[in-house]
Amino acid sequence: MKLKAKLLDIQAGGRRIAILDDETASLLGTHSSDRVEITYKNEHLIAIVNIASNFPRNYIGLYEEISRKLGIETGETVEVRPAESPEALSYVQAKIRGERLRENEIRTIVKDVVERHLSDVELASFVTALYVHGLRMNEIEALSKAMVETGRVLTLDKGPILDKHSIGGIPGDKASILIVPIIAAAGFIIPKTSSRAVTSPAGTADRVETLCPVDLTVEEIEEVVKKTNGCMVWGGALELAPADDIFIQVEYPLAIDPLLLPSIMSKKKAIGATHVVLDIPTGRGAKIKTIGKAQALAHDFIDLGKRLGINVQCAVTFGEQPLGYAVGPALEAREALLAIMGNGPADLREKATGISGILLEMVGIENGKKKAEDLLRSGKAERKLREIVEAQGGNSKIEPEDLAVGDRKAEITTDKEGRVLWINNRSVAQVAREAGAPKEKGAGVVLKTKLGEHVEKGGIIFEIYAQRNTKLEAAIELAERLQPIGLSKKPEQRMLMDQIPTRTVHRKTFILER
Amino acid sequence: MKLKAKLLDIQAGGRRIAILDDETASLLGTHSSDRVEITYKNEHLIAIVNIASNFPRNYIGLYEEISRKLGIETGETVEVRPAESPEALSYVQAKIRGERLRENEIRTIVKDVVERHLSDVELASFVTALYVHGLRMNEIEALSKAMVETGRVLTLDKGPILDKHSIGGIPGDKASILIVPIIAAAGFIIPKTSSRAVTSPAGTADRVETLCPVDLTVEEIEEVVKKTNGCMVWGGALELAPADDIFIQVEYPLAIDPLLLPSIMSKKKAIGATHVVLDIPTGRGAKIKTIGKAQALAHDFIDLGKRLGINVQCAVTFGEQPLGYAVGPALEAREALLAIMGNGPADLREKATGISGILLEMVGIENGKKKAEDLLRSGKAERKLREIVEAQGGNSKIEPEDLAVGDRKAEITTDKEGRVLWINNRSVAQVAREAGAPKEKGAGVVLKTKLGEHVEKGGIIFEIYAQRNTKLEAAIELAERLQPIGLSKKPEQRMLMDQIPTRTVHRKTFILER
Repeated sequence: MKLKAKLLDIQAGGRRIAILDDETASLLGTHSSDRVEITYKNEHLIAIVNIASNFPRNYIGLYEEISRKLGIETGETVEVRPAESPEALSYVQAKIRGERLRENEIRTIVKDVVERHLSDVELASFVTALYVHGLRMNEIEALSKAMVETGRVLTLDKGPILDKHSIGGIPGDKASILIVPIIAAAGFIIPKTSSRAVTSPAGTADRVETLCPVDLTVEEIEEVVKKTNGCMVWGGALELAPADDIFIQVEYPLAIDPLLLPSIMSKKKAIGATHVVLDIPTGRGAKIKTIGKAQALAHDFIDLGKRLGINVQCAVTFGEQPLGYAVGPALEAREALLAIMGNGPADLREKATGISGILLEMVGIENGKKKAEDLLRSGKAERKLREIVEAQGGNSKIEPEDLAVGDRKAEITTDKEGRVLWINNRSVAQVAREAGAPKEKGAGVVLKTKLGEHVEKGGIIFEIYAQRNTKLEAAIELAERLQPIGLSKKPEQRMLMDQIPTRTVHRKTFILER
Repeated sequence: MKLKAKLLDIQAGGRRIAILDDETASLLGTHSSDRVEITYKNEHLIAIVNIASNFPRNYIGLYEEISRKLGIETGETVEVRPAESPEALSYVQAKIRGERLRENEIRTIVKDVVERHLSDVELASFVTALYVHGLRMNEIEALSKAMVETGRVLTLDKGPILDKHSIGGIPGDKASILIVPIIAAAGFIIPKTSSRAVTSPAGTADRVETLCPVDLTVEEIEEVVKKTNGCMVWGGALELAPADDIFIQVEYPLAIDPLLLPSIMSKKKAIGATHVVLDIPTGRGAKIKTIGKAQALAHDFIDLGKRLGINVQCAVTFGEQPLGYAVGPALEAREALLAIMGNGPADLREKATGISGILLEMVGIENGKKKAEDLLRSGKAERKLREIVEAQGGNSKIEPEDLAVGDRKAEITTDKEGRVLWINNRSVAQVAREAGAPKEKGAGVVLKTKLGEHVEKGGIIFEIYAQRNTKLEAAIELAERLQPIGLSKKPEQRMLMDQIPTRTVHRKTFILER
């Protein structure tokens, strides 16, 4: 059927959607969500039909993803005909029925995901079915491999290639800014890609971006790593395992994360990693609540690593409170810089050297933690950080006070004396986000006390930084409602942790940070 | 945050979607799929955010569903702020985790579905979770009631109110066109609403539309029923249980139908039915394959009926071949008219009087089937049909030959002699659709032989009717590939039913007809 193109001049979030009016759709024999094949000048393309009753007859509305690909203008004629569903859909349906998928079936799904042949409805149903039925390790392996195959890969010819990754969930986790320079200073390759915050107040890419550019091309990354052994870049636009970015679009609103293992490990494989430490922060308010669950997940990571040819070790880390004191991109970068220069919080230094130590021992260095501490203490790690910052296009002479933090500040005090019994990670993260993080890089929270510490009546328990008064006020108000820090002289004097429905504040607290 | 409205002048299929560019979304702190509250002249509205990187900054793109509701023009200013997820989403997530839902939770979900507060992703995940985890009868009951409460209802003050419904799947099932007049002629109320074809060659609404208008308002229906005791109208635009229409939008592409029970029974409750016969066609190529499954489903319908105050009986009917010979809107209406006038196929008359008989006995008439046969034979049912046709705005004098069928016709012959061993319902339906049905009302298939009948070599096994040569040719080609009718002198001489992968033609064969 010949139809005239009508360009909508708007993007559909990568989706390939075509608009038809009821009458035209009915003549074509297609319903909403059916596929059509659009042909223009020998170029064929499959689109998913949406029906709009007020659309002109004999026209087909094209979002920019399609019109740009076809190079077509409004008014030009295309041939449109009904198309079969993609092969992947029958495997998605098999998974809905609870069947196990074969390797070639999974490869077909991932390929069709990357080529945008599956609709949001089909993707949502697929990840829901994965979540409900669970995945076998064979399926996880096939997914990981297919996600690597359908994306770009980094080609660094020197080996071994080291990497670390946190499954996330702990505010203020700036350990990578210490670990990458330590490993690189030890003479090993560590091409670290990381993400921006989705649901947290800062991702490693957001933190590092206050020190130097992070938005490098694959070629620039290879250059930086050749020069310095390491890098700390944003992985989002590199097209490493791009299927994952599409899955995240439906996982995020559903707050489910069934692809955690293939998602993380496909990205490690795509950068060519040979030795990886997975950090699994564990505790109330972390993604993983108990050591038992952390251990089970760790074994899965190790098993998957073996199948992908990656040597994996896992670090189960204390996740009951933020790492260090600072939460928010610039505040955290400042704290990391202080730590690598010899100051900064002890827990941050301990975690960074601990994980670095495991990595170093994996590649044959004895007393890895000691070696990492030496590299930190001697200033070699700091010099390496400055090299990397410079190679990525930043100022190698940067000092902690050069990092601009929000000039609107509030001090939150306590009206009672006592010790810190708990710190609610999610509440701290929410307050930092309310203050403007991660978008406003100077915004965030600085804790003035940590678990087990003693605070006097009237003492400051944390500070809020913001770039705008309205944000500061909103964050103060939220902090007062959430009360992220619980104090008492003795635990036995404060057994009440929450009151329902009065105190609990319902907020989306799904952690989707990889 | 104040943004300027930009009207997109296009519908989003009922969805409430707003477009933001990355930068504006980021300043608002919202991601794709998050909600925003849009305020314009004291009118508040929740929309789901889609992100388009090429959209102008400080604008918000509004699809027609939103702009019309707000009564806003391009360039006017709205207040936009992040909004919480709807309460329903947390219950959707509970169902994903496999939890049972409480009545008030289900009511909240259905209300948010009807108000379009849930995105396609969330709806798809919900129906997938329902399909995978299954539903308890308490949940089915609550869903049915909530679906009634969120829609319009028919108010016919005379009782009892009778109805029949087929769960569908059998091509050519025009029994309702006989049953409604029989029941109405017997003096009982039967306000039959039915659907148009989604995946089949004809729905009852498509068939009846060749006799008279079916697109009546609720008030017009009440008028017709007052005058004639019955009606045969399209239920689609009546807003009876509208949640179902929204669920279907995601069930259709996924080819799953977990809401079959509440979907059908909520519509029965909405028209005020007190006595309902459910027809469950059973056999290979029908929705339900075995009598055991049909019985289990029947008991669920009966149980649900009790909970909704509806007396339900079920008829498990022979579903291994089309009903009658004709498949396609006008062809079927012609066959139904012939049957009610005293001719027509025996299986059609048998099924129609059988189901009518059950209905009549449910309201206290003895020898129901005999009574139904009498009403058919005496011409009372025919006169009642003509009354209803006239009341709905059609011509009461209509004769079978007045019904225009496609003037392009092909006869499909057999090259061997034998008896009909099988008729593939789905293949027959596909050929009829390929010929143009249901959109082209005169298109379809007429069988010239049925199961067990003997055909000579060279004899005609079925005819294809079309309104256009291209459609006729496509249907002939498909018929040759699918070979919907299997013949053999004796079964033992034809054991091979299919050959894989050579013969099987993969087509979407999900039956979604309610």
